[in-house]
Amino acid sequence: MTLDPGAGAREAPAQVSPGRSHHRLGSFEPELGGFLQDVTIAYETWGELNAAGDNAVLVAHALTGDSHAAGEPDETYRKDGWWEPVIGPGHPIDTGEYFVICSNVLGGCSGSTGPASPDPASGKPYGSRFPIVTIRDIVRVQKRLLDDLGVKRLALVAGGSIGGQQALEWAVEFPGFVEKAIPVAANGALGPQGLGMSELGRRAIMDDPDWQGGDYYGTGRSPDRGLALARMAGMMTYQSAAGQWERFGRRPASRPALCEEFGGRFEIESYLHYQGQDLVGRFDANSYMYLLRAMDLYDVAAGYESPEEAYARIRARVLFVGITSDWLFPAREVRAAAETAKRAGADASYAEVDTLSGHDAFLKDWDELEAAIRPFIES
Amino acid sequence: MTLDPGAGAREAPAQVSPGRSHHRLGSFEPELGGFLQDVTIAYETWGELNAAGDNAVLVAHALTGDSHAAGEPDETYRKDGWWEPVIGPGHPIDTGEYFVICSNVLGGCSGSTGPASPDPASGKPYGSRFPIVTIRDIVRVQKRLLDDLGVKRLALVAGGSIGGQQALEWAVEFPGFVEKAIPVAANGALGPQGLGMSELGRRAIMDDPDWQGGDYYGTGRSPDRGLALARMAGMMTYQSAAGQWERFGRRPASRPALCEEFGGRFEIESYLHYQGQDLVGRFDANSYMYLLRAMDLYDVAAGYESPEEAYARIRARVLFVGITSDWLFPAREVRAAAETAKRAGADASYAEVDTLSGHDAFLKDWDELEAAIRPFIES
Repeated sequence: MTLDPGAGAREAPAQVSPGRSHHRLGSFEPELGGFLQDVTIAYETWGELNAAGDNAVLVAHALTGDSHAAGEPDETYRKDGWWEPVIGPGHPIDTGEYFVICSNVLGGCSGSTGPASPDPASGKPYGSRFPIVTIRDIVRVQKRLLDDLGVKRLALVAGGSIGGQQALEWAVEFPGFVEKAIPVAANGALGPQGLGMSELGRRAIMDDPDWQGGDYYGTGRSPDRGLALARMAGMMTYQSAAGQWERFGRRPASRPALCEEFGGRFEIESYLHYQGQDLVGRFDANSYMYLLRAMDLYDVAAGYESPEEAYARIRARVLFVGITSDWLFPAREVRAAAETAKRAGADASYAEVDTLSGHDAFLKDWDELEAAIRPFIES
Repeated sequence: MTLDPGAGAREAPAQVSPGRSHHRLGSFEPELGGFLQDVTIAYETWGELNAAGDNAVLVAHALTGDSHAAGEPDETYRKDGWWEPVIGPGHPIDTGEYFVICSNVLGGCSGSTGPASPDPASGKPYGSRFPIVTIRDIVRVQKRLLDDLGVKRLALVAGGSIGGQQALEWAVEFPGFVEKAIPVAANGALGPQGLGMSELGRRAIMDDPDWQGGDYYGTGRSPDRGLALARMAGMMTYQSAAGQWERFGRRPASRPALCEEFGGRFEIESYLHYQGQDLVGRFDANSYMYLLRAMDLYDVAAGYESPEEAYARIRARVLFVGITSDWLFPAREVRAAAETAKRAGADASYAEVDTLSGHDAFLKDWDELEAAIRPFIES
């Protein structure tokens, strides 16, 4: 099920995964202002849409993810799909039963329109002229893609982190369209500690002289050091203190140095350097900033009188999944969101993944994640 | 009680507090290598040393602190001493009873020899040639200052954060010299989450082109943006998530913007920007890096077979003080250090400050801090 295969692929920076399929959905007005004349969304699908168009599952990716949610490594993608164990025949999201879609978010850099894409008005990349996009914008664009794909109803929308924010926003924004939603490691609004860590990341990119005010495309320079540092800050929020003790402790570095030394290196340092460097070349620094900002700005209550008024719109069944050691979206705050939604009249429940893995548990603790979500999906 | 007043003041960068008194203590060999030909230590004292030389209290400052631990604002210091409510007549550290000393640490930038000081061999600032210094080096230099001041025994050594590491190291390194030690918000070795946050800060400075490999003195440029970003990362570790919810929440910024905007600002962001900018001009970026590294490298067990062997050396009574919401040195880890010390035979006890203020509580929650330390000091 593919619309306009290949269209828009020219817009993707050469270094990033282009997506399997692309759909041009015309112009779009982001809710905070600006105008995008010609939006392309990269996506991938698994399984078959039924005649009623109501067996669709939308899977929403996290900050640096892409539309490749499932599948083994191949010539295009060097790693398994990021939710490979969750999606497939007999997996919690069963592709024998469901038509599964994952699209690269608006503002991303893996085939969908983002800051690196050419502005049709000038033919040059948007760069700093790309408008601020919100989680609601991302979801509204996904809705247009689903409409064009013939989806009449989402049996499920699920994702972690900003993917979880999308899952929640779907339930609020399109109440009649969604049967079930699973926001994992996300809640109605990020707390100040997360906001502060995001700002560290953005500042790192903006402080890099190669960022050039956001207009670095085609200059032969890009804010690689800033992006690597931003990623290092991000990685800190994806892990727990206890998990880092277990994994790194104060052990000396085992990897070769990527950067200069300063009195020897600890393993946690070389891990951060490695992760920082690893993102460079596979992700666009501006997209990183825009998507971080979308995460920060997301507030389920935006445009409503209160979170309760927003949650009261929900007609889907919603399972909030918290991760006990999550520092970015602490489990207590995810649980509180579920309780507020329930108080507001939504059919909301809460499950917890008990792990030391921190925020990133939804990308690695497969058994625990399955235990949390499978009963809800099958119920 | 002042030795060589004014000596060494020329070594301090113009922008930093020079210290009231200065002492040249000759050459020093840092334990990890290198050689410092002529070390000057800035210090300040309160109260009078008794004839026996045994009523001395050493107060050790934290990362960006200086020797001005007590006193009201004056022409030299625009703020109260950083432990003003703790030190003074009738205060927990009673200057009617004790001779109180606070010295700027080796490697610092407030009157003591550090990376910004001229290397006597070349006449130029050490910059990147300054050797790595450790908490043990800092303490050994303090010991030489105390010897020269005629101190025969420390009735007490106390401090928070890297000041707490110093208090602990004093008890281990000079067991016969110390009667009581109070390490606050510190333990025997920083955990990986703290190490990671430190590395973010160092990397921010090193990524700033104005850092120039550490040799920016006299170039007319200094890594101000990197230092500000490092400070922002530090501030994140000094506060707790709950405390930040209370103080900042998701409220929009109330301060005027110091930096560019990116889709509006949250209060936590403008607070971080302000704190980052506030450190620039009053602290040297290289000192920041060297002292962060001293914090990271501190391991009470260094040079011993085990932490237990180190703790077994202690002859002082030691009160470890944990802060319930501390993220940098979590209370559970401070408590564990106290328990290990006790198991090893040290006269160690533990008290806790229950607060949302996070790591920085030892610089603001005066009543709670006094409740934790006064009984121990008076006992």
